[in-house]
Amino acid sequence: MNIYKSKSKEGQKFLKKIISRQIDMEGDTLFEVKKILDDVRKYKDTAVKKYTKEFDNVYLEDFEVKEREFDFAESKVEDDLKKAMKKAYENIWRFHERQISKGFEIDIEDVKSGSKYLPIEKAGIYVPGGKAAYPSSVLMNAIPAKVAGVKEIIMIAPPSKDGSISNEVLYGARLCNVDRVFKIGGAQGIGALAYGTESVPKVDIITGPGNIYVSMAKKLVYGSVNIDMIAGPSEILILSDGLQNPSYIASDLLAQAEHDELASSILLTLSMTEGKKVSEELKIKVRELPKEDICIKSLENYGAIIVCESEEEMVEIANKIAPEHLEILGFGKGISEKIRNAGCIFLGEYSPEALGDYIAGPNHILPTNGTARFFSPLGTDTFMKRMNYISSTKEGLENLKENIEIFAKKEGLIAHERSITGRF
Amino acid sequence: MNIYKSKSKEGQKFLKKIISRQIDMEGDTLFEVKKILDDVRKYKDTAVKKYTKEFDNVYLEDFEVKEREFDFAESKVEDDLKKAMKKAYENIWRFHERQISKGFEIDIEDVKSGSKYLPIEKAGIYVPGGKAAYPSSVLMNAIPAKVAGVKEIIMIAPPSKDGSISNEVLYGARLCNVDRVFKIGGAQGIGALAYGTESVPKVDIITGPGNIYVSMAKKLVYGSVNIDMIAGPSEILILSDGLQNPSYIASDLLAQAEHDELASSILLTLSMTEGKKVSEELKIKVRELPKEDICIKSLENYGAIIVCESEEEMVEIANKIAPEHLEILGFGKGISEKIRNAGCIFLGEYSPEALGDYIAGPNHILPTNGTARFFSPLGTDTFMKRMNYISSTKEGLENLKENIEIFAKKEGLIAHERSITGRF
Repeated sequence: MNIYKSKSKEGQKFLKKIISRQIDMEGDTLFEVKKILDDVRKYKDTAVKKYTKEFDNVYLEDFEVKEREFDFAESKVEDDLKKAMKKAYENIWRFHERQISKGFEIDIEDVKSGSKYLPIEKAGIYVPGGKAAYPSSVLMNAIPAKVAGVKEIIMIAPPSKDGSISNEVLYGARLCNVDRVFKIGGAQGIGALAYGTESVPKVDIITGPGNIYVSMAKKLVYGSVNIDMIAGPSEILILSDGLQNPSYIASDLLAQAEHDELASSILLTLSMTEGKKVSEELKIKVRELPKEDICIKSLENYGAIIVCESEEEMVEIANKIAPEHLEILGFGKGISEKIRNAGCIFLGEYSPEALGDYIAGPNHILPTNGTARFFSPLGTDTFMKRMNYISSTKEGLENLKENIEIFAKKEGLIAHERSITGRF
Repeated sequence: MNIYKSKSKEGQKFLKKIISRQIDMEGDTLFEVKKILDDVRKYKDTAVKKYTKEFDNVYLEDFEVKEREFDFAESKVEDDLKKAMKKAYENIWRFHERQISKGFEIDIEDVKSGSKYLPIEKAGIYVPGGKAAYPSSVLMNAIPAKVAGVKEIIMIAPPSKDGSISNEVLYGARLCNVDRVFKIGGAQGIGALAYGTESVPKVDIITGPGNIYVSMAKKLVYGSVNIDMIAGPSEILILSDGLQNPSYIASDLLAQAEHDELASSILLTLSMTEGKKVSEELKIKVRELPKEDICIKSLENYGAIIVCESEEEMVEIANKIAPEHLEILGFGKGISEKIRNAGCIFLGEYSPEALGDYIAGPNHILPTNGTARFFSPLGTDTFMKRMNYISSTKEGLENLKENIEIFAKKEGLIAHERSITGRF
């Protein structure tokens, strides 16, 4: 992996490349996805069948997963994984239960008002298929929705060529009491959830990451439904004070790199010596991995070790990158307080990213690609909305009457003014 | 205004039309807006100048509002409006201060984790121009951002033909300590905020309603920045138990109708007699309004009085319509607890919508067009994001170690597994 000094020309160039990385939402893909969505809106199940044949290479007359398929899946999942999933379920539930937003009521000049938080009624969750069919993604998507009080959860996932969905994913859906599961992926799946078809119910919100087609489709249906965020390539940024175990650092960089050739794994360290040691460790460790090729490409294109001059410089770079995962190794306690943009912070040498991927409790569906500047991790509030209310007595309205009239007149809204004056 | 019985064919048809009303985000407009955004991304200020000339009929070499323009605006705004705006500022601030989400920390099997809420750094707020240049919109947009702790607020508004922005809007911006104001509107304004130009800084979130070009542009830049919601036509739904003052009801329906020919004003009542009285009142009152023509078109196309058979039926219809504004007149106290979808509820005969438009405290930027099913009113949390963290000891990681290994192996992520085992 390349080692740069932070102030060097190459270091600056690399950082600029990472910070300005945009999801390619351009031209052709946009129109292609728009066409798929329009077709699904118009031709419903017929269009879904067509695109499933085209993209997933399987013709399905009926997309919905049946009870016997869930039974079969449950019989095939190994006991130790079932146990692990149940433990994860418990911890994820505990964390997200604490995240429920509470409403309030306030009295302002004898007018009562407040905010209430209510569950969104129907949620559609997208679980990627193929090699990325992770049972942990089902848990991370469905549990916050259940905790929020969503009435109906519809899950979709792309089918394999044989028309099946992974047993682990189906078992996860059953474990989380997902109401219905459909074997539909891609933009056609997002369209089916957003507009409804003969077989798929229209939902109010769609969550969960997917490929570029899924992301683009989520963006285009936004407004007809709500969505959680737009997902891009995933990344880790590690900050080290230079006194850390290089083996731990290398293993965490690789755990990110093995996800995807587009994944980004970056170390910021205060020590060139540590940087070099980590680089050596990477060379050894990567050879032992089944996903060696993916790791090498990812580290070459989007990975780097950057030797910084100060803690302050590191914090500044971290806030600019706004990484999905941020590990902080060493330093005094105050450093994490300076981090303003990150999906999830992992503090200390015994908090590797993998701890957060499965079982610690917090969600692993996090804002990627710099969007932690403004998006939040998936959470309970993703599946809730706020509603305001106002309740005034005659005295309360009288207190504010004059000022309302001034505003309304100035804004040329005479019916507004009369709706107040007419009451006195 | 048409009076229907809820179960009649015409009543059902009208309700279906309202519930299925979609913002027209189709074909040509999408491509037109995409072209404007691409141009702004590529040619920056040059493109903004071109489109401002084209759409706002004014050529501006410099878009930024200058100190002397603020001074001039302040000197022109009448004292009584200044006083009303200051009072509104105070009440809106008090309400939104209560809305700040609080983080938490939890200990799960010796692993500490939690969520923190942090302000988004830079916000862009859109204030419509022309006839809809309302100072109240500035307050409703900017105050929650300030309360949230946003560091820099950039406001944009379309210029008039003479290159100015309304004095009241500029005074509002100064009152709210908005950092910079630019005279740019439409899709080109949204593009400038999302991508940045030579003169306009790139922001992290864009809020505030606008016309169809603005809405479409917000949708297309979503992901490069966050946005608050997609706004459509505005609406009021009034529920009456049949024992209310028909004059109040008529005046509140008109206060909605005068906004826009596309606005929707609907009364659900338990009494045909009341319905007829309201209809009579409307006929008289509408003639006295300067915006009579707009009101008539709005009431004819998107307005109705619907006589329902029961309170339960009304609640069901209200939850389906998911109105921006919902007035509840009469009934027992429990009825508002059954409302699941609405932007803001106005309870009782002395809580007309106009009270919430300006000064009660709650925000007037609300989800419209049925999106209250899944969007929230603009609020403090619109300008904040959540960040998670995990902090484990060696013992904590050891407690969860085995289960992480099971997950990682099953998901084929061997580097994940090794990042755990390598620490023991």
